[in-house]
Amino acid sequence: METIERVQKHKEALTAEYSEAIPGLTALARSMVRELDPLDDLEFLRVRSAKHEIMVAPREW
Amino acid sequence: METIERVQKHKEALTAEYSEAIPGLTALARSMVRELDPLDDLEFLRVRSAKHEIMVAPREW
Repeated sequence: METIERVQKHKEALTAEYSEAIPGLTALARSMVRELDPLDDLEFLRVRSAKHEIMVAPREW
Repeated sequence: METIERVQKHKEALTAEYSEAIPGLTALARSMVRELDPLDDLEFLRVRSAKHEIMVAPREW
């Protein structure tokens, strides 16, 4: 049971860390879009890594 | 003919501006992924705005 718990804890920790890092990346993506075209806006950001897939829809906030 | 040329010029200018901005965003996304898991790496970044869709596959460089 101990291993499963450890894996679960690791996943939770990683999720928390990602949720801390994502707003900064989203803010940069949004400012890039708006700087290039003030009438445009960021709708979706998808970060695919070898191990994870993160999808951000800023409008849902 | 003049309008089409103007639209074409605008598209080319915007593409050039995006290609200047994208490396910075990609670098931040990559460092975020690696910071959270040094064994992981960024494979794909997709930025969808109301007007454009930008897809970045850093490994292709």
